[in-house]
Amino acid sequence: MGNEKETGRIEAFSDGVLGIVMTLLVLELKVPEPRDTPDFSLISELLSHWPTYLAFVVSFSFVLVMWINHHRMFSIIQRSDDILLAANGLLLFGITLFPFAMGIAATYLQHAQAVLGVTIFNGLSVINSVFFNILWRYASGNNRMFKSDVDQALVKTITRQYAMGPLLYAAVLVVGWFSPLLSLFLQAGMALFFALPNKLFTQLEAEMDKAGD
Amino acid sequence: MGNEKETGRIEAFSDGVLGIVMTLLVLELKVPEPRDTPDFSLISELLSHWPTYLAFVVSFSFVLVMWINHHRMFSIIQRSDDILLAANGLLLFGITLFPFAMGIAATYLQHAQAVLGVTIFNGLSVINSVFFNILWRYASGNNRMFKSDVDQALVKTITRQYAMGPLLYAAVLVVGWFSPLLSLFLQAGMALFFALPNKLFTQLEAEMDKAGD
Amino acid sequence: MGNEKETGRIEAFSDGVLGIVMTLLVLELKVPEPRDTPDFSLISELLSHWPTYLAFVVSFSFVLVMWINHHRMFSIIQRSDDILLAANGLLLFGITLFPFAMGIAATYLQHAQAVLGVTIFNGLSVINSVFFNILWRYASGNNRMFKSDVDQALVKTITRQYAMGPLLYAAVLVVGWFSPLLSLFLQAGMALFFALPNKLFTQLEAEMDKAGD
Amino acid sequence: MGNEKETGRIEAFSDGVLGIVMTLLVLELKVPEPRDTPDFSLISELLSHWPTYLAFVVSFSFVLVMWINHHRMFSIIQRSDDILLAANGLLLFGITLFPFAMGIAATYLQHAQAVLGVTIFNGLSVINSVFFNILWRYASGNNRMFKSDVDQALVKTITRQYAMGPLLYAAVLVVGWFSPLLSLFLQAGMALFFALPNKLFTQLEAEMDKAGD
Repeated sequence: MGNEKETGRIEAFSDGVLGIVMTLLVLELKVPEPRDTPDFSLISELLSHWPTYLAFVVSFSFVLVMWINHHRMFSIIQRSDDILLAANGLLLFGITLFPFAMGIAATYLQHAQAVLGVTIFNGLSVINSVFFNILWRYASGNNRMFKSDVDQALVKTITRQYAMGPLLYAAVLVVGWFSPLLSLFLQAGMALFFALPNKLFTQLEAEMDKAGD
Repeated sequence: MGNEKETGRIEAFSDGVLGIVMTLLVLELKVPEPRDTPDFSLISELLSHWPTYLAFVVSFSFVLVMWINHHRMFSIIQRSDDILLAANGLLLFGITLFPFAMGIAATYLQHAQAVLGVTIFNGLSVINSVFFNILWRYASGNNRMFKSDVDQALVKTITRQYAMGPLLYAAVLVVGWFSPLLSLFLQAGMALFFALPNKLFTQLEAEMDKAGD
Repeated sequence: MGNEKETGRIEAFSDGVLGIVMTLLVLELKVPEPRDTPDFSLISELLSHWPTYLAFVVSFSFVLVMWINHHRMFSIIQRSDDILLAANGLLLFGITLFPFAMGIAATYLQHAQAVLGVTIFNGLSVINSVFFNILWRYASGNNRMFKSDVDQALVKTITRQYAMGPLLYAAVLVVGWFSPLLSLFLQAGMALFFALPNKLFTQLEAEMDKAGD
Repeated sequence: MGNEKETGRIEAFSDGVLGIVMTLLVLELKVPEPRDTPDFSLISELLSHWPTYLAFVVSFSFVLVMWINHHRMFSIIQRSDDILLAANGLLLFGITLFPFAMGIAATYLQHAQAVLGVTIFNGLSVINSVFFNILWRYASGNNRMFKSDVDQALVKTITRQYAMGPLLYAAVLVVGWFSPLLSLFLQAGMALFFALPNKLFTQLEAEMDKAGD
């Protein structure tokens, strides 16, 4: 089976990168420069930066949900090899770009070039969901990296759910061409979709299996 | 009981985020630009930034005490599920906002809009104490996520102590409307209150139990 | 054998530093300042920063591959002493300088002084490959820090591969004097070389052993 | 013995903070702004920032050596309580201030107010060595937090070595009043002193014990 190692250190390293990315996002929130003019209002200065706050909430949710799913995957994945390390590295590469993509989306949301700015952000989420699928498909193919007693129904559920990711995120990207703002709200909805699902999907699977009998 | 997992990775990830937030706070401390004018004094430049140092000490204490309490909770919590992950994510969301809130409080403490700046900081601490209660209440309800042999008196003590958090932080917030500076000192006191207490609270409980007999 | 300790905490600490460096690299990617002139194009602003993106990809790959190799080494290394701690610290020192070196290379790639900028980056990679060899040679000499049942063929393979590092990176550095851009592409190739190799090298060794029989 | 917990999570959290501080130091190294004037030389721009590089090397060494000593302490410390958590938090507080102190020392090393700038840096190292002693004295007093089979000679050695820290760092601070630059070189020497010593000190102790017989 090649040179397989335990996954503890991959998880710890990925936790580090994900945790840092989640925290670096806050550096995009800038404290407004105080001015001494009588018309200066901190509250309206802050409110004028609402695109940044929206982008922060969406990005934070996205990265948190990636962590939750990474955690789920690696509660099943028990072995690693060089290809898994590389696939995980690819995913981390995509994730570290989020603070940059968030900065672009937030800065240009009210600018003439909002569509492009938001498309970069949405495009990165498409790419990351593809990277997620690569990692999962490699680990789950032939139960390559799994414990022997893994719940196959759960594996199939996760595979189907992840397969929907690139399609759904591509749809969000297309929406962004018509309404950049709406696409960001849809991003928040996608985060909920990938945060909540295991039980719901298992339930759905059970219902579909029953219907299929 | 649904799909429960061990809590090691949640703790590691939360440690990462809390550690980074604690360390990012220092980025708000700016080195004064040197000038070659004869009246330039580094010491008075530094001293003029005292609100930043005060906000740093208060924020650092706050985040450190959140870590200590997170550590305490998870020395009792032994299982996790999707809802616990989400509740923990909510708490991390609140915590990552601290460097931003600290920046606002420090920048505006001597400005006409000091009340608003400090209220944002104090408001974030109210929200975080609510998030802490959500996490604790979910984990402790019906001993949902606990070891079987957990000390029930300790659980009740922690529950009571945490329940006081939102009320006390709301009081600090109201004080901040009248004296922004005083409210920051009260924040430091609150950090001490949540840092020291387990034994003191257990003692109080014991005395109250005795009195009740 | 002196005061030897387990290596878990060294790995965790190194993971932290490597993860943070990988993530800090993204801070070098700056969001272009929006302007309201009719000729302003976000896409051409972004594209004009391609040296930064190239440097980001190369640096990220370099640090990721260092992590993968650190992970490989410490799956064999089982003990530590003061000298190993110091050698690991030296390596971490070199690694933390990457965001700075990347910034210089990216900023000056299209400037008259591109050769110097890229040479600093390439020079740092030479130094790091030397540091890697110091750590590995100390740990592997007399199987000093190894498990008793370590695969000696694997150790020899790794030793040979790492020994090629300083030479190859020095060659890349020399190439950079004539073509800074080409040398950055070679850096990406080097990352692949050190990412893929264990099995390939073992295979090569097996073939050479057969040929030698 | 109160509510004692295992130390794994304290170590992980401290590793996180120390690793981040070590890595944040590099953010003080700024890439020189390129200019298109004929007299612009990247090399002389870089060399003119030598105080920053010196401060970086000294700060990195200092934090690395703190990590090595933290690692040593916690290979002996096996239990924790609220006071240990607080003492460790105090130490982390001092450590997170290093990037700021390093920035001041580097910025003002060639300025009229160099003595003050370097004194702040040296003063922080005095404070941190005091914090280190508080943590160690609390943990080692009555073997409070130790394994039962801890090597008492080693404990005494560490106690003596740490006790010299505040005195030696105070001496460095006084030197800095006369020669700021020399004091920074002495800081590097101090880092070596606290990095290398366990075996040397044990040897010294053995010799002194022999002499005392």
